[in-house]
Amino acid sequence: MSKQSFELLILGSTAASPSSDRNSSAQLLNIAERYCLIDCGEATQIQLRKFKAKFQAIDHVFISHLHGDHFFGLPGLLSSMHLLGRKQTLYIYGPENLKKMMDLLFEVSETQLNYSIQWVFTNAKGKNLLFEDEKIEVYSFPLKHRIQCTGFLFKEKNLPRKIDKFLMEKHKLSQADINLLKNGEDVMNADGLFIKNAEVTLDPPKARTYAYCSDTIFDLNVVDYIKNADVLYHESTFLNDMHERATKTFHSTAQQAATIAKAAEVNHLILGHFSARYRKIEEFLSEAKTIFEACELATDGKKIKI
Amino acid sequence: MSKQSFELLILGSTAASPSSDRNSSAQLLNIAERYCLIDCGEATQIQLRKFKAKFQAIDHVFISHLHGDHFFGLPGLLSSMHLLGRKQTLYIYGPENLKKMMDLLFEVSETQLNYSIQWVFTNAKGKNLLFEDEKIEVYSFPLKHRIQCTGFLFKEKNLPRKIDKFLMEKHKLSQADINLLKNGEDVMNADGLFIKNAEVTLDPPKARTYAYCSDTIFDLNVVDYIKNADVLYHESTFLNDMHERATKTFHSTAQQAATIAKAAEVNHLILGHFSARYRKIEEFLSEAKTIFEACELATDGKKIKI
Repeated sequence: MSKQSFELLILGSTAASPSSDRNSSAQLLNIAERYCLIDCGEATQIQLRKFKAKFQAIDHVFISHLHGDHFFGLPGLLSSMHLLGRKQTLYIYGPENLKKMMDLLFEVSETQLNYSIQWVFTNAKGKNLLFEDEKIEVYSFPLKHRIQCTGFLFKEKNLPRKIDKFLMEKHKLSQADINLLKNGEDVMNADGLFIKNAEVTLDPPKARTYAYCSDTIFDLNVVDYIKNADVLYHESTFLNDMHERATKTFHSTAQQAATIAKAAEVNHLILGHFSARYRKIEEFLSEAKTIFEACELATDGKKIKI
Repeated sequence: MSKQSFELLILGSTAASPSSDRNSSAQLLNIAERYCLIDCGEATQIQLRKFKAKFQAIDHVFISHLHGDHFFGLPGLLSSMHLLGRKQTLYIYGPENLKKMMDLLFEVSETQLNYSIQWVFTNAKGKNLLFEDEKIEVYSFPLKHRIQCTGFLFKEKNLPRKIDKFLMEKHKLSQADINLLKNGEDVMNADGLFIKNAEVTLDPPKARTYAYCSDTIFDLNVVDYIKNADVLYHESTFLNDMHERATKTFHSTAQQAATIAKAAEVNHLILGHFSARYRKIEEFLSEAKTIFEACELATDGKKIKI
């Protein structure tokens, strides 16, 4: 059985103002064929087109906080979804004021969307389950920034155990038996034979997690929420030479992001949200690697398998 | 004496949703070194960067109406101006609700701009002077669209008359005499010689005008406002094959835009705001040319001298 899809597409990787080669924060996550947009800086819809992502497939939008570089692309994206004939409900997870703003925007432009929006408001108090279905769970957790801000944790649910096909036929297992075995239970087959789960099943692939942390000051409190994530995205607006400015503006350095990754014992770290003052972003990588080796830089258009 | 600058840079030329090669409506007009941004679709700040326009030089922003493809780029542009240290006042001309929206936006993101915004509200009742200084005048005039919408007329003021240098010295003209002559008056010089204006001056270059019409249904009432403009930009969202849809959505066809240009006896017509349904925009040109020859298509990045 092949693993279910779990892939990230970086749509924007710069902080504050977009440049001609780096867009503001946005990522598209495909988790078990659920398409989740994470933050939505200006021109995200253009980036989606550029990288040939089907944006009508997006059913969930997660907005971490209400600084412009994380949501100024949302009005345009929602409008285009409308103009291109979207009918299915869109779920938006973010601060309550985001709804207030979108409502005013559509009111003044006298726009009546053809699809409905289901709002789920976030808060920065503890871990909260935002969405769940049979395959995935998504949580928010608090980040420390100048205004209310949350990170997001995307988790696969435990996959069913894998059944040995040869033994399945040998023991003439019914579909009911198979379902019980996939869930880890033991069964008794039609011949009255007691079959222990471990005799006929193998462990499924490990359920994976992706954690998204932007924007935030260096804060070890976040470690509990993202512990052992397979992939962690952590903002690194500055290099260590500007750690004072990072603290003052409630942002992090590459070194600090790596320190969080190490403390949380994640498998892999992605750095992003680079300040435009740095011409060569390679220095973010070398700085982080002195503390945490398994890391890479977000660049617009990059695909990363979780 | 060389003519003063009067040049247009097309930043976006598509209708409704931006594509990867055509942005939403926006134009940068340099009129006598006054930089005016006309409409501001999403990603306009990125287009300004791409085409190497200095966006801090923009002191005037004109928004025709509150459909998203004409103003969704404004929040990002204003934020970037702030982040990049702008201090000088920015003048924004547009519907009153635009201010309401921007106020809410900056309120929820807890942003206090470092520069002030001077708002001038437009209405769609007749011709209104929005801005005037010693070199230019800008007017709004009503367009007929689904919501309140205005066009804009940019006019050079009459330039001073040109004085023949040889005669100026021969007649020993004082600076006071010269100033009077430049304004078209006759003078008496220090020797008591009466000098008729026509004897020592030449006509200045003709004062030029640029008219901007987007979005609008075909409406001959607009002709009075744009009569004899040197350059007219008129939207042409559709070709004639979809003239019914154009009417229904309060837009124009290429043929209709050309009809307006002809009736207004302008010198030159620019077509834009093309619906993304048309792959080959050359057809807009051929359709318009059957009625009005001197026309061209707006394409992103194109510069047009007025």
